[in-house]
Amino acid sequence: MTEDSPTTLDAALRARRERVNEAIDEQLPVQRPERLYEASRYLLEAGGKRLRPTILLLTAEAVTGTAPMDADYRSFPDVDGTPVDVLSAAVSIEVIQSFTLIHDDIMDDDDLRRGVPAVHREYDLETAILAGDTLYSKAFEYMLQTGAPAERSVRALDELATTCTHICEGQAFDVDFETRGDVAVDEYLEMVELKTAVLYAAAASIPAVLLGADDETVDSLRRYGRSVGQAFQIQDDLLDLTTPSDELGKTRGSDLVENKQTLITLHAREHGVDVDSLVPTDDVEAVEESTIEAAVAELETAGSIDYAREAAVDLVEQGKAELQVLESGHARSLLEDIADYLVERTY
Amino acid sequence: MTEDSPTTLDAALRARRERVNEAIDEQLPVQRPERLYEASRYLLEAGGKRLRPTILLLTAEAVTGTAPMDADYRSFPDVDGTPVDVLSAAVSIEVIQSFTLIHDDIMDDDDLRRGVPAVHREYDLETAILAGDTLYSKAFEYMLQTGAPAERSVRALDELATTCTHICEGQAFDVDFETRGDVAVDEYLEMVELKTAVLYAAAASIPAVLLGADDETVDSLRRYGRSVGQAFQIQDDLLDLTTPSDELGKTRGSDLVENKQTLITLHAREHGVDVDSLVPTDDVEAVEESTIEAAVAELETAGSIDYAREAAVDLVEQGKAELQVLESGHARSLLEDIADYLVERTY
Repeated sequence: MTEDSPTTLDAALRARRERVNEAIDEQLPVQRPERLYEASRYLLEAGGKRLRPTILLLTAEAVTGTAPMDADYRSFPDVDGTPVDVLSAAVSIEVIQSFTLIHDDIMDDDDLRRGVPAVHREYDLETAILAGDTLYSKAFEYMLQTGAPAERSVRALDELATTCTHICEGQAFDVDFETRGDVAVDEYLEMVELKTAVLYAAAASIPAVLLGADDETVDSLRRYGRSVGQAFQIQDDLLDLTTPSDELGKTRGSDLVENKQTLITLHAREHGVDVDSLVPTDDVEAVEESTIEAAVAELETAGSIDYAREAAVDLVEQGKAELQVLESGHARSLLEDIADYLVERTY
Repeated sequence: MTEDSPTTLDAALRARRERVNEAIDEQLPVQRPERLYEASRYLLEAGGKRLRPTILLLTAEAVTGTAPMDADYRSFPDVDGTPVDVLSAAVSIEVIQSFTLIHDDIMDDDDLRRGVPAVHREYDLETAILAGDTLYSKAFEYMLQTGAPAERSVRALDELATTCTHICEGQAFDVDFETRGDVAVDEYLEMVELKTAVLYAAAASIPAVLLGADDETVDSLRRYGRSVGQAFQIQDDLLDLTTPSDELGKTRGSDLVENKQTLITLHAREHGVDVDSLVPTDDVEAVEESTIEAAVAELETAGSIDYAREAAVDLVEQGKAELQVLESGHARSLLEDIADYLVERTY
């Protein structure tokens, strides 16, 4: 990342986040039954960096060589100049993300998300399940509303559907790993690919599909998304340990409490740390800040924190290399910067 | 229904149910992570009449004038003779149905389904949520695997996505109605249309879309599905009161215990029955068979049972009238018979 890019990237992220937020308001209004739609919008309104839809918009710009923010994303010129509503595709990806958060919070019995109560706490279990289910089908509706030629829409829908299946499989592995002490690094990386990275892969590849890019471009962008998505999850695992709860929007160290397997704990276990004893409680509410701090210190001494950091940086470099398939330009630079940001962010 | 039709219909239902079951086995194998896929298949393996996918196959036959069971459903000739895999569409519809049952049982906290423990009882809450989510995206994958021209696939996907949104909205209304004493008949019918009938409408209209039928045919078949689907739900409400628990596969009278609004209770309330006092407990486990019997007797005296039966029969007649859009023939007769069956069945 160049010296002056933080400002550039910040501005680029903010501008696109605002467009995505406006689009969510347009496409997901509160309608009857109101409580269902309020619950469906609740997490989306609570914040979020909109990283995935921003990557989708940047990819659309980079694929078509459109000057950033120069085009109407609702009527975005494809490779032949025919308009495609890439903003609806961006909303679709963010809405899938929101659905998975709502259901994951139920499964993990997490109380907080983005600094506010999880949906099943703010509303109730029934409403949270149903809000997630509603967002799920809405995401497919939005992906069908891009106006792209039918052949491309079918490919985009197929990518979205298989992505959702993979997210479920990844979450199932994640839950399964909580009761296993013998998870290998490859298994962890597969789990992270399925649970987290495939949605980044979809965000990067679907605009290329919708806009008529060639297969080589689509495949490279999918690999870019997958690599930076894995890096994002590893960084998330790191932040869970190193960021204060109030900045994190949820309890610091909750992964350790819930016995989540991360690249950090896998490395620590291999290097003789008694990971299961680091945090004796299973209750996120009951854990002391000092317990987490002592645990993090032990993981740092074992080199596990640095190991995970380096793995994330390697993945980001792999992802950025895939961007060579694109013409150089401002949008491609921003896709490189956003990849760096994913592992440099502090919350 | 003619005198000899039960046998014909039974044979027709059985033959198509077997094809659907084989197709489910082919398309939803147990794969890694095994526990997730076992949970996803659990309810599908526990039984089910496969009414919706059977209607889909019969509609495909009727639309194209194909002799029943004469064709390979995996390679079914469309209006121009081009092959379409309508069986994959049938599996998609059944899988959506199964996903909604899994999540509904969590929301209603029901213990039994199809005579076996509900998925969240047999497995756990996390796995049940995730199994439903997996089936959800799988259904979209299957609907994309029909090999139909892209324009028709996009229309079918759109119908499927909006159907799922409507099912969620209907379920939200259903939950909302449990705490309301002033639900009107029109509101109930809207709720039933959303919660239940739209999936029948999709089952009847989607094969027409995929096979290239004209819009008039598609619209008539959608109305057929909607009417018979509403009738099906009213009959379900009746069976909940009149069928012994062991035949029903769940506790008789559970709707009364859970304060579900049905056409029966709405009529009774309007005719002076103190519906809320019919079954004093809120615990399905604790309710006595004699309490349910006394409640049903009171509902019968008020004319509420007959009222609901007549409403269901009227809806079936409305639905059958829509079938005039099709050429007469064996498949159309079976679609008429299956409509009658929906309100004549005893479980």
